[in-house]
Amino acid sequence: MRYQLHYWPGIQGRGEFVRLALEDAGAAYASKPPEDRYRAFAPPYLKAGRLVIAQTANILFYLGPRLGLAPKSEARRLWLHQQQLTIADWITEVHDTHHPIGSGLYYEEQKREAKRRTEDFRRNRLPKFLSYFEDDAGGFSYVDLSLFQMIEGLRYAFPVTMRRLEPRYGKLVAIHDRVARRPGISRYLSSGRRIAFNQHGIFRHYPELDR
Amino acid sequence: MRYQLHYWPGIQGRGEFVRLALEDAGAAYASKPPEDRYRAFAPPYLKAGRLVIAQTANILFYLGPRLGLAPKSEARRLWLHQQQLTIADWITEVHDTHHPIGSGLYYEEQKREAKRRTEDFRRNRLPKFLSYFEDDAGGFSYVDLSLFQMIEGLRYAFPVTMRRLEPRYGKLVAIHDRVARRPGISRYLSSGRRIAFNQHGIFRHYPELDR
Repeated sequence: MRYQLHYWPGIQGRGEFVRLALEDAGAAYASKPPEDRYRAFAPPYLKAGRLVIAQTANILFYLGPRLGLAPKSEARRLWLHQQQLTIADWITEVHDTHHPIGSGLYYEEQKREAKRRTEDFRRNRLPKFLSYFEDDAGGFSYVDLSLFQMIEGLRYAFPVTMRRLEPRYGKLVAIHDRVARRPGISRYLSSGRRIAFNQHGIFRHYPELDR
Repeated sequence: MRYQLHYWPGIQGRGEFVRLALEDAGAAYASKPPEDRYRAFAPPYLKAGRLVIAQTANILFYLGPRLGLAPKSEARRLWLHQQQLTIADWITEVHDTHHPIGSGLYYEEQKREAKRRTEDFRRNRLPKFLSYFEDDAGGFSYVDLSLFQMIEGLRYAFPVTMRRLEPRYGKLVAIHDRVARRPGISRYLSSGRRIAFNQHGIFRHYPELDR
């Protein structure tokens, strides 16, 4: 099966969580921009034969067993999906640190609110998410790939905060490091296909929002 | 199978989307408060035999075919789940209209930001979500039950805005009305089990946030 991943060019964004799974598995896929004729509320969406699947966690739920990144048992798949949906909530909260008022407005138009929201995020929400996933156990799956991306992105967006918090979350950091050493991922990260973090994606570095 | 739905007592919240499915199907279930021993980032979660499933959309994905509220084909289930996840995003945006800075703060502590965020929600996001689901087609499923709840909740939270917008979304209103007439739902709505909307849930009515 040759997949088509439709997503905005130039940013990692939510598409990156799918891309990491495809790259880790060495799957054949093409990156395409979004097209109007496919019915989805927002990208990313994946074309797999005649199927068009949107919502990042839904795509990973579909791909998981097909790429060898999830077991086939229903109970286990539901559990991994529950974890991935919790990561999806986490991603939304990261996005909203710099866009607490509206995604159609510039950061500069909501800077004051962003500062307040990020303070709450750094103090309350970020440690809550990190603690939750620190206790995660179980074999390797696509969820680990997404946790790798969360740590990478949070380090880019909040370097000072993460340097302070990371020592408390050794298991999460270990997951991150193990993922980085996987052949498909390490090949991908050093390839031209990995877009660098930048100020247009979900993870953005505004020094005034970091501590 | 006798289910246990664990959720905060006293509010409809996200638990209500699950409850509507159980009630429509006439399933046997008990409502319980959350318990610490079950590992989930947040309620609601469903106990089904030995399984404990969290994340509202994930619970509905599991229950759908078992309650006769979703077909069994994978393609169709993925599509319904995609729709339900888009509703989940919508719910989060509704919640954030009155809590744009932090869910641990009172509304009164973020009133100014709430006003700005809600203005953007009413003007841009709400019509975008309504239009998206207005174009939805297909047989009856648990997604219709959730769309019913969205319309109910939005009418409670934003009565002025909804009176203005609803005439443009006749198909969505028709889905709402059809759901209200379903035997299980109409029985449930007039029972003591349906908690009234109030100022502690996701849908809250603050006149200053409505137009």
